[in-house]
Amino acid sequence: MNNYKLTIQYDGARYKGWQRLGNDDKTIQGKIENVLSELAGEKIEIIGSGRTDAGVHALAQIANFKMHKDSTEDEVMQYLNRYLPNDISVVDVSFVPDRFHARYNANDKTYLCKIWNEKYPHPFMRKYSMHVEDRLDIEKMRKASQYFLGTHDFTSYSNAKSKKKSMVREIYSLDIEENEGFIEIKVRGNGFLYNMVRKIVGTLIEVGLGEKDPTTIPTILESKERIQTGRMAEAEGLYLEKVGF
Amino acid sequence: MNNYKLTIQYDGARYKGWQRLGNDDKTIQGKIENVLSELAGEKIEIIGSGRTDAGVHALAQIANFKMHKDSTEDEVMQYLNRYLPNDISVVDVSFVPDRFHARYNANDKTYLCKIWNEKYPHPFMRKYSMHVEDRLDIEKMRKASQYFLGTHDFTSYSNAKSKKKSMVREIYSLDIEENEGFIEIKVRGNGFLYNMVRKIVGTLIEVGLGEKDPTTIPTILESKERIQTGRMAEAEGLYLEKVGF
Repeated sequence: MNNYKLTIQYDGARYKGWQRLGNDDKTIQGKIENVLSELAGEKIEIIGSGRTDAGVHALAQIANFKMHKDSTEDEVMQYLNRYLPNDISVVDVSFVPDRFHARYNANDKTYLCKIWNEKYPHPFMRKYSMHVEDRLDIEKMRKASQYFLGTHDFTSYSNAKSKKKSMVREIYSLDIEENEGFIEIKVRGNGFLYNMVRKIVGTLIEVGLGEKDPTTIPTILESKERIQTGRMAEAEGLYLEKVGF
Repeated sequence: MNNYKLTIQYDGARYKGWQRLGNDDKTIQGKIENVLSELAGEKIEIIGSGRTDAGVHALAQIANFKMHKDSTEDEVMQYLNRYLPNDISVVDVSFVPDRFHARYNANDKTYLCKIWNEKYPHPFMRKYSMHVEDRLDIEKMRKASQYFLGTHDFTSYSNAKSKKKSMVREIYSLDIEENEGFIEIKVRGNGFLYNMVRKIVGTLIEVGLGEKDPTTIPTILESKERIQTGRMAEAEGLYLEKVGF
């Protein structure tokens, strides 16, 4: 039994997110499992480092799977890229020790949000960035970003359904830079709740537009009420950029 | 009567190219003229610096048009971007002297071809680049590119129909660079015949794959026979990058 680690890029636009939903294959996990099961001649289950929401992209999602068949790394990579749709690419395959588990061993994740901040839409990146027409004040957004750093209960910043699981997460860094005309927001943390990145970015945009004062963020976090968070960033500008192990 | 200069970006994928075909508005020119005619309350004709083929993109196509209505530059830009489809953006509008003519005054054009040279498709750039799976030898391609420089009769490198017009064009530069994982071919010349850039790039790719020797290029040029040119680059990786005046 070999344990394979996959590094995967995908354009999430057509999919209902990472996580397989029954036999529905309009998920990234579903598409990959179907192709791998064909290769393996047995039912294969892959373990992703975490879910990505519907529409969200990935630059380097990490997953692992085990199979009895003795394929080389190259064979697995070639088979996957031949039979997967063009909007999902496997950019690396490597053997890992039996104990490697893409979810349990993931230490941190970095999400990237690309914002196009011009009056006119970007013809080539319109499906891969969020378009904000009114000018954003980056300095204000940077000030606001400081309030998210560290360990917080992110109940207000999630649409997670479970009330039993802990909503406490730690944000290690939150950087806002201009890069080739785009405003790029990068947030790195030990884990993210359902919709959490999109809600944090949504608040930063409200601050950048002058609709919300940065100092309201601690109050929103303390309230633990979703109603207060307001705007949510569009999935099309959001990428899972990196998973740290 | 004001004369307006437009700088236009477009994703050419959905269109039959720049040039208006009768009343068919599946062309870039057609789309823009329809919107401008609405604004002007008269039939507007725009003059592009040149045609782009079906599927070819533009980063900075230049065009001009005249209208009686006294709109400001900002008004024209806002109106166009509001009513044009999202894959065509006007990124600048400026008043120019009455004698400015986007086609007659264009001195040179630069085309950019983006090639993704990996085994797997690029999930985000698959519609905006050409995918070549087998490894290209850039040094060989650079050697081959030298044969295109200068003034030549490009009959063999065109699908132009007219036999009356001159097929002589001058290529000022042809550079091949690696940029963020893409191979970028930039060709600057005083003008390009129908399909000429795509045929030149096609030959460079054949050279890069070892299918053709660079030294055959002068023979192909001298033959003035289209049959010898071979492969043609895909339109989806091709951009009109710049027009010099």
